[in-house]
Amino acid sequence: MVYLTRREHFNAAHKIYCKHWDEEKNKAVFGKCANANWHGHNYDLFVTVKGTPDPETGFIINAKELGALIQDQIIEKLDHKNLNLDVDFGKEIQPTTENMCIWIWDELAKHLPAGMLYKVKLQETENIFAEYFGESTI
Amino acid sequence: MVYLTRREHFNAAHKIYCKHWDEEKNKAVFGKCANANWHGHNYDLFVTVKGTPDPETGFIINAKELGALIQDQIIEKLDHKNLNLDVDFGKEIQPTTENMCIWIWDELAKHLPAGMLYKVKLQETENIFAEYFGESTI
Amino acid sequence: MVYLTRREHFNAAHKIYCKHWDEEKNKAVFGKCANANWHGHNYDLFVTVKGTPDPETGFIINAKELGALIQDQIIEKLDHKNLNLDVDFGKEIQPTTENMCIWIWDELAKHLPAGMLYKVKLQETENIFAEYFGESTI
Amino acid sequence: MVYLTRREHFNAAHKIYCKHWDEEKNKAVFGKCANANWHGHNYDLFVTVKGTPDPETGFIINAKELGALIQDQIIEKLDHKNLNLDVDFGKEIQPTTENMCIWIWDELAKHLPAGMLYKVKLQETENIFAEYFGESTI
Amino acid sequence: MVYLTRREHFNAAHKIYCKHWDEEKNKAVFGKCANANWHGHNYDLFVTVKGTPDPETGFIINAKELGALIQDQIIEKLDHKNLNLDVDFGKEIQPTTENMCIWIWDELAKHLPAGMLYKVKLQETENIFAEYFGESTI
Amino acid sequence: MVYLTRREHFNAAHKIYCKHWDEEKNKAVFGKCANANWHGHNYDLFVTVKGTPDPETGFIINAKELGALIQDQIIEKLDHKNLNLDVDFGKEIQPTTENMCIWIWDELAKHLPAGMLYKVKLQETENIFAEYFGESTI
Repeated sequence: MVYLTRREHFNAAHKIYCKHWDEEKNKAVFGKCANANWHGHNYDLFVTVKGTPDPETGFIINAKELGALIQDQIIEKLDHKNLNLDVDFGKEIQPTTENMCIWIWDELAKHLPAGMLYKVKLQETENIFAEYFGESTI
Repeated sequence: MVYLTRREHFNAAHKIYCKHWDEEKNKAVFGKCANANWHGHNYDLFVTVKGTPDPETGFIINAKELGALIQDQIIEKLDHKNLNLDVDFGKEIQPTTENMCIWIWDELAKHLPAGMLYKVKLQETENIFAEYFGESTI
Repeated sequence: MVYLTRREHFNAAHKIYCKHWDEEKNKAVFGKCANANWHGHNYDLFVTVKGTPDPETGFIINAKELGALIQDQIIEKLDHKNLNLDVDFGKEIQPTTENMCIWIWDELAKHLPAGMLYKVKLQETENIFAEYFGESTI
Repeated sequence: MVYLTRREHFNAAHKIYCKHWDEEKNKAVFGKCANANWHGHNYDLFVTVKGTPDPETGFIINAKELGALIQDQIIEKLDHKNLNLDVDFGKEIQPTTENMCIWIWDELAKHLPAGMLYKVKLQETENIFAEYFGESTI
Repeated sequence: MVYLTRREHFNAAHKIYCKHWDEEKNKAVFGKCANANWHGHNYDLFVTVKGTPDPETGFIINAKELGALIQDQIIEKLDHKNLNLDVDFGKEIQPTTENMCIWIWDELAKHLPAGMLYKVKLQETENIFAEYFGESTI
Repeated sequence: MVYLTRREHFNAAHKIYCKHWDEEKNKAVFGKCANANWHGHNYDLFVTVKGTPDPETGFIINAKELGALIQDQIIEKLDHKNLNLDVDFGKEIQPTTENMCIWIWDELAKHLPAGMLYKVKLQETENIFAEYFGESTI
């Protein structure tokens, strides 16, 4: 079993706030992240798949095809977008790094052979990143 | 003459579009950067000052004080903000990396001894940055 | 289960040497790291916690609060310090990257809900880092 | 159990192609990576060992000795080489990042105490890396 | 005058050797870089242009168009290539970082308004890069 | 004229304080940097030389020889040392990033052809670096 990771990138705006909390509580809990007019980030997305290298190609998966899949299913939907307004999942749940990892996993898992997706890691700033391994635990 | 550079950081939302252009022209020129609902970036700001090290302290400037000045005059105004809506300069001019460098220079130059500020560099993504040296040319 | 990592930073001096070894043996085993007058490093500390995102906030833990905890319990004690002289644990045991991970884990685990702390990673140079997962094994 | 990682570096040329495929199929599957005259990369190699820190030295392993072992067994053989022409394993199997991880693991495991080697990670570009944990699974 | 820098990337193989020197002299001068079967690098290319931001767009140049120009004129010719065999300039002159900067400058300058190109920087490894400012001196 | 930069690395301990100031003033001016028992850093040193590439080698200078010179004249004296106690210049003047650039320039200039050394850049943390161009100004 070998693990291969492909990085892709997107830039997006978002805010973190609870609609049913008043402004004061939002500010107390989320601080500047609740700014009404949004802020944004450069996101680095690392997708890890696992498998046995093919004897002919030496690949677990063709990294170019994995990159194209991530572009089509994820980057197209998130890049230069407002995560709260322009993306369906962000209208329902908080677009935190944690929740975005889960959503990205669910989107990618549909398009990959069962058991191949191993990890989704999303780096929001140089100081914060989240990782999700699906329902399995490490 | 020695040059000292201090890095500070902010995260912000913005869009690049011309109010008096129609949507089609905005899209043709600015592409995804004109997305109506904004996008955002992690910005790395590098401020360079020049001078002769003080014989006692060995400093051109106390880097902590330079950092505090950048925080007070720039980061406080831009961090977790919408550059088009929340910052005065962004209502008037395009918040491109180029224009932001000029604005940051003008804000900092007011608070530093004449001739001390040498360069403002703003990194918007890992692929794009701008630099401004004031009215002097290098 | 989602994993969230927060980076914090400190700069410190240390040396690696055995008090009950002579200088020759210290030099043979530890090389330049045993220099009597110390040397130092910029340390990057990555703390990973695990949990289920809260349905309202989307957070496993408020990253700002996690950052404040790391600052209070770790960075305050290590930043701009001599790890052998200024920090209690460094008087007793070698302040190697490995041992520091264990000490940092033990300090942080006291202040986090049981089972939440997942990993402590400490990067000493661009070429060396250590990781500790508590008594559990991965 | 603590995990210690040491980074080493090498630069090499390679190509990815199947001898028994025609040029068209090679191009369709491997794209530019099949360029007949080779291309190349800066490779970052991260070797992780696990163990309990020695009570006297505070080391799982002396990082200098681990570095020397990686230099002798791996970097000497791969640095400034053509992976398809100059290295035995590359004449037999595709020198993909995945296969190289397995080969590096096998070379290093011979020279380390049983159970000490934990992971080999090889970064080929800033967008692609592979990891191998031996026959055990994580 | 503001300066804007765009990064692009390519991977290539090369060797540094003099055809009219014997192997011994090549090895003495160029060391491992003269390996007969080539080695390779991940190259980061930084192209800097200068100008006054346009009052409407806020751009010195549209960074997307600058990126497309670099892709068409440079990356297409160098990426996944052998610099000594596949690229005309490399058959005539040594494909050192220094010489490549000059060649890249000359190629790009043809396609940019006079006086706009300011600097070409080419990073070959994390330890070595070259910069060229055209015939002007800084 | 082309510019070539070589990076080398060292780790060192230091403190910034004035012997003839009392502890209170030292703390007020230098903060944690004045900690009596030292602190330390990972330093990245970038040395830039300028010249015309040699028609045969394509080199301004052989980067390996430049690296060896920096190792012999600078890294040997500073790596794993206490800059205030183990290095002559640090006994006389403050080992700030600014002053170290000047000292490194003076040491290297003795061993390079006149006019070849262009810049010494010293990165102390990811947030602070200094640059020195000798007595010429840029």
